[in-house]
Amino acid sequence: MSNEAHTIAKRIIEALDRRDHEELVRLLQKVPEGELPQRLAQLTEADQRRLLEAIPAEVASSLLQELPESQVTRLLEELAPSQAAAILDHLPSDEQADLLGALPDEEASKLLEIMNPEEASDARRLLQFAPDTAGGLMITEYLAYTETCTVEDIVEDLRINAARYRSYDVQYFYTVDAEGRLTGVLRVRDLLLSEPDTQIATIAVRQPVSVATDTSLDKLEHLFAHYQFYGLPVVDRDGRLVGLVRRYDVEEAIAARANRNFLKVVGISGGEELRSMPLRDRIKGRTSWLTVNLILDLIAASVIPFFEETISAVIALVFFLPIISDMGGNTGIQSIGVTLRELAAGLITPRDAWRTFWRELPVAVINGLVVGFLLAGVALVWRGNPYLGILIGSALTLNTVIAACLGAVLPLGLRRIGIDPAVASGPILTTIADLTGFFMVLGGAAVILPYLT
Amino acid sequence: MSNEAHTIAKRIIEALDRRDHEELVRLLQKVPEGELPQRLAQLTEADQRRLLEAIPAEVASSLLQELPESQVTRLLEELAPSQAAAILDHLPSDEQADLLGALPDEEASKLLEIMNPEEASDARRLLQFAPDTAGGLMITEYLAYTETCTVEDIVEDLRINAARYRSYDVQYFYTVDAEGRLTGVLRVRDLLLSEPDTQIATIAVRQPVSVATDTSLDKLEHLFAHYQFYGLPVVDRDGRLVGLVRRYDVEEAIAARANRNFLKVVGISGGEELRSMPLRDRIKGRTSWLTVNLILDLIAASVIPFFEETISAVIALVFFLPIISDMGGNTGIQSIGVTLRELAAGLITPRDAWRTFWRELPVAVINGLVVGFLLAGVALVWRGNPYLGILIGSALTLNTVIAACLGAVLPLGLRRIGIDPAVASGPILTTIADLTGFFMVLGGAAVILPYLT
Repeated sequence: MSNEAHTIAKRIIEALDRRDHEELVRLLQKVPEGELPQRLAQLTEADQRRLLEAIPAEVASSLLQELPESQVTRLLEELAPSQAAAILDHLPSDEQADLLGALPDEEASKLLEIMNPEEASDARRLLQFAPDTAGGLMITEYLAYTETCTVEDIVEDLRINAARYRSYDVQYFYTVDAEGRLTGVLRVRDLLLSEPDTQIATIAVRQPVSVATDTSLDKLEHLFAHYQFYGLPVVDRDGRLVGLVRRYDVEEAIAARANRNFLKVVGISGGEELRSMPLRDRIKGRTSWLTVNLILDLIAASVIPFFEETISAVIALVFFLPIISDMGGNTGIQSIGVTLRELAAGLITPRDAWRTFWRELPVAVINGLVVGFLLAGVALVWRGNPYLGILIGSALTLNTVIAACLGAVLPLGLRRIGIDPAVASGPILTTIADLTGFFMVLGGAAVILPYLT
Repeated sequence: MSNEAHTIAKRIIEALDRRDHEELVRLLQKVPEGELPQRLAQLTEADQRRLLEAIPAEVASSLLQELPESQVTRLLEELAPSQAAAILDHLPSDEQADLLGALPDEEASKLLEIMNPEEASDARRLLQFAPDTAGGLMITEYLAYTETCTVEDIVEDLRINAARYRSYDVQYFYTVDAEGRLTGVLRVRDLLLSEPDTQIATIAVRQPVSVATDTSLDKLEHLFAHYQFYGLPVVDRDGRLVGLVRRYDVEEAIAARANRNFLKVVGISGGEELRSMPLRDRIKGRTSWLTVNLILDLIAASVIPFFEETISAVIALVFFLPIISDMGGNTGIQSIGVTLRELAAGLITPRDAWRTFWRELPVAVINGLVVGFLLAGVALVWRGNPYLGILIGSALTLNTVIAACLGAVLPLGLRRIGIDPAVASGPILTTIADLTGFFMVLGGAAVILPYLT
């Protein structure tokens, strides 16, 4: 598979060199469905640009729809404006707006000026809405009819405009009043079962579920998870129908947000890195997080120098410090994970901290005892000193309990004060667990020092 | 909001005590949409069971659809079989099969025996398919007609069976031949635009995209991300139409899998824990992971005892060991995150390890130098020994580079040998980074010991 993959990439480059544009389109069609992103990733950015310039704008636009948005934005920036505008013209209205919104303002207005005026005006309208809202996600390709229309009128309209509507995703027809306010919704099959002269007002479902342009992605996710709708009408402040937000688009936005969150959790500030991005952006995204962690590590380790004498006396303690630290982190992260899961499933809210703590405690204690006994055994067998075993084992047990209970409630506290718990819980927890762990091992050792040496 | 929440939970319990079943249904209807899971979580398991017993099976079934599957399975197990069966009868075919599949075999067969025979036979058929395949996800509520039917025949059928089809999610009609083999697909709007006496064979799209019963969730995710289909027909080995897999169901399965993966990554074996689950299951899910980590920690720390003399001589080193260890882990996890992101976006495959390594290297080196210089500065200022600064700084730099490069390729190697990279990359990486980090700090210190004391 991969050999073939590399062959196609090589043949694309050869065709580019020969300026054989037809061969390029043929080659792209030969790429198995879904493998296009990977093939393109094998080209340098310069070759990717040459490829986009060589193929028709329509082919280029369908090709770009396969790639991550951050990559597409960069490619568009590097193309000649006329070519970028032609490609944008061929994209659905919501993706036009997404990409234009991600470009620098200056660049975006330049492109809007040379785009097809009708497409540009749609895009301008959508651009006023924040990206992860119903307004930012909606498309303007929907079908609405005034209530006085009959079934026959709609069928007639569908026949006449068949070509234009071909790319429309018709699951519902909306009914509006004379001012364009949404009044009802019809499924396609409702028309099928009605006589041609039926007024649509009489068969439409009245007061359909609709969303406002500023409805958040969270709320949309909720609605689409709750109802099996394929799309929801979007209305402005006056109740006028202005767009359609589809399940498909909400799904895409949720996946994109999940990606950003995942990368933020592992420490990529900004929430996006692909290794094809410029070095400077990649380093910027990672260094800030690493620096914060270095500072937190310094804070956590700051306990250690206070006990240098104790350490000198019982050098074996050094072996256990990283273990206590790591196990605290691991236990805490498990507990954070379960709390985030329960938050996401809507089973708890930030106000349930107390209940969550009590439900965590028994698991924390039993797990703490298990790992504490194991490590105490290792210490005893290795050094033959029962006091060392008891010290290390009870420090691990206690620290495990502290970390697990803290991990259970920390995300709730952070959410309550408006900090993203998925991003901040881990570093805060590991810092605290290190501090308490180091303190218990070293402080405990200082107290029972005569028994350890 | 939360006060009201607690009030409703309290009023539910009161109504249960009074056996006021109508009040219960009223109270449930009053719960704001989407807040039901949280309200139910405030009840004890015993009260949840009492509630399900008290309300009509139809209400109970719609209530259960709001809860995580693991919770529903447990509730069904605790209900009287006749009640559990009645609730199952009211669920869609795919959810019946999911829940029955999650129950112990014995329990499931008991329920199947007392369920409505028609529902039970559908569920039995779906139960033969693995959960995350098209067969396991499909529903049997679809509409298929033989090719010789006319548009009028379909409309007639829709009229006659309007009541039965009401819960059907009709986006497409399928055409089949005399043997039931899938031959074509029609959108509802295609019928709208055709004359009543048109044979559907003439307007159906031939050879529609279809999936096999054993098509994996991965492949389905891919297809639904690529095409804007609302559902895909499922065929058996002989090409006979046996079900319909909807976007909605694929989406739900993907979200459930993402949840399991997330919990596996944070160290919950089995991939599910809610704090309402029995203590034994919760401890089992966490302890195995903690024990594995304890062993990995012992391996990582095993370098330390070899250098006890060096540590005794330069006790300040102890301060830096956990920092080197933690920074290695943090850098590696960033890099693992980017590789997982690129894998998920289809930009790289396990064969691209070499290219990924080279693209990681410059970022790794620059980040390593940044944090290395920072920590060298701390060491220099704190202890006033330039050699200590150089040792610690270069150890951190080197270890950061190693961890970042290893993190870039490790997930690809694991994927290649069939191990889930999201779960295994972290623990493996941190163990290796600890080993190399401790070795460089302590080994380096041993070599330049005269300059450090």
